[in-house]
Amino acid sequence: MRVLVTGAGGFVGRMLVPLLASRGHDVLAADLDCSDLEDVNAAQARTGDLADPGFRRAALKERDAVIHLATVPGGAAEENPVHARKINVDAAMALSAEFAESRPRGPFVFASSIAVFGSPLPAVVDDATPVRPRMIYGAHKAMLEVWLATLSRRDDLSALSLRLPGIVARPKAPSGMKSAFMSNLFHALAAKRTITLPVSSEATMWLMSVRQVAACLAHGIEAAMGEVPESRALTLPALRVSMGELVVETTRQCDADPALVEFKPDEAIEQEFGRQPPLRTQAAERLGFAHDRDLERLVSSSLETLG
Amino acid sequence: MRVLVTGAGGFVGRMLVPLLASRGHDVLAADLDCSDLEDVNAAQARTGDLADPGFRRAALKERDAVIHLATVPGGAAEENPVHARKINVDAAMALSAEFAESRPRGPFVFASSIAVFGSPLPAVVDDATPVRPRMIYGAHKAMLEVWLATLSRRDDLSALSLRLPGIVARPKAPSGMKSAFMSNLFHALAAKRTITLPVSSEATMWLMSVRQVAACLAHGIEAAMGEVPESRALTLPALRVSMGELVVETTRQCDADPALVEFKPDEAIEQEFGRQPPLRTQAAERLGFAHDRDLERLVSSSLETLG
Repeated sequence: MRVLVTGAGGFVGRMLVPLLASRGHDVLAADLDCSDLEDVNAAQARTGDLADPGFRRAALKERDAVIHLATVPGGAAEENPVHARKINVDAAMALSAEFAESRPRGPFVFASSIAVFGSPLPAVVDDATPVRPRMIYGAHKAMLEVWLATLSRRDDLSALSLRLPGIVARPKAPSGMKSAFMSNLFHALAAKRTITLPVSSEATMWLMSVRQVAACLAHGIEAAMGEVPESRALTLPALRVSMGELVVETTRQCDADPALVEFKPDEAIEQEFGRQPPLRTQAAERLGFAHDRDLERLVSSSLETLG
Repeated sequence: MRVLVTGAGGFVGRMLVPLLASRGHDVLAADLDCSDLEDVNAAQARTGDLADPGFRRAALKERDAVIHLATVPGGAAEENPVHARKINVDAAMALSAEFAESRPRGPFVFASSIAVFGSPLPAVVDDATPVRPRMIYGAHKAMLEVWLATLSRRDDLSALSLRLPGIVARPKAPSGMKSAFMSNLFHALAAKRTITLPVSSEATMWLMSVRQVAACLAHGIEAAMGEVPESRALTLPALRVSMGELVVETTRQCDADPALVEFKPDEAIEQEFGRQPPLRTQAAERLGFAHDRDLERLVSSSLETLG
């Protein structure tokens, strides 16, 4: 299939593009900066801004499917909500509507986020949990879910919004994510450096390795064309791990000294990212989406793909 | 209170502005065209486009509350979704965010619509019915509800989205509404003219007179500052009437010949506007919102305010 991947230069995109190419897809990788995509085989890269209608037109030309990753992330959206609105809402609505025009009923996979649930979270999160975003970023994602479900209900396109959990390990570069500490743990222990974590060892988080995220997004193209819930939105399965057990396993695999890690909980960060309750994701599991299986595999996969 | 009313030149706005002024509010009436507002006492009128940041800034200056009516309506949004997105989503998000900056936690009343429920409707609509828009217009309204609830959850503003039912009687001028036939009935029978209705006499509709809608919107300013549901959205009470009984009562009050009315059902119109099931609106009623009380009052109020 001829697949457009937006935000392809990001750390998820750089994992997803070669995976799609290896499965025989003809991939067009679009981003503001495609310099990190030069070594990606079997994919064309196209540099430009999705807020530009001419760039969207060129990117959508002869595409059968879209995986839309491009986004202004959480912290950056809080810093500049006006810019975030242009990309996360306006450009995303335009891209999906234009794709529906050029390829009616085509699969459109949207990288949504658990940020749609806001904080504090209820005692359990499952497929019936209502969306209650608190961050600008989460609101934008929830709004796009509504928009894409509407276009799907009209048979204009076949959307699937996949709510991604915490992804490890992100690159060290500033990403605008307030949850960066989860990834920084891997970078620090792999390099045998000290790290101070802004949460307690009891903090619980929903995590997925970037490789597994890429696998879920690629699977989304087929899943979007099948039987999906009326909301067209799925919360992806994730391993729920405590920061304490994550530290123990990562320390072990890195052969690092546990004393490198200091816990210095920040109540706001703990509240927003470290109180993730049991997660039930039957709808996604029925459709073939899966998490990393166990903590050992989550950590080894995350360490193998450190940028 | 110093209240900004957007879309104030529309038929709801023209009823709302004098009502607010009569209650002692200092009203700023904004619209693309304010010519019909010239005779409104005790209100300033300001002409301009909400998509223009400079106009928004001027309109929000020293305002304590906003009632946001401006919208590209259903049929017009289907005709030009790109323009509709600029007004219904982008300008509305900007206006609410800018109001939150200039007047933290101020009341922001948003004219949402029963179009958020889409069609076909479930057997009963109540406060737990999920939003499932099918029209572009309904999607835009549902997206703004998500956005305004998020801003409220953050204590940036105190939003209240009021889902308006069918409003009678709209003016005769083309309004871009596919549901215009409901109002055209009043105009035709008041003028003793023939009318062909695109629904059957069994069609059931949720209706409210424009005067009652204005009363609900004005009440919204106070209600927004009180205890409201987490979603910050309320479906307004409405009388559920059949087209047959509406014709009988309107004919009687107009002293018109029932033979003036012909039913010529169009299946698509009947499906979209004429299959409205029992409606339960406890949340809104608890907060003091009400419908027109009975069919006789609904019809007399609608006839008194024919434009």
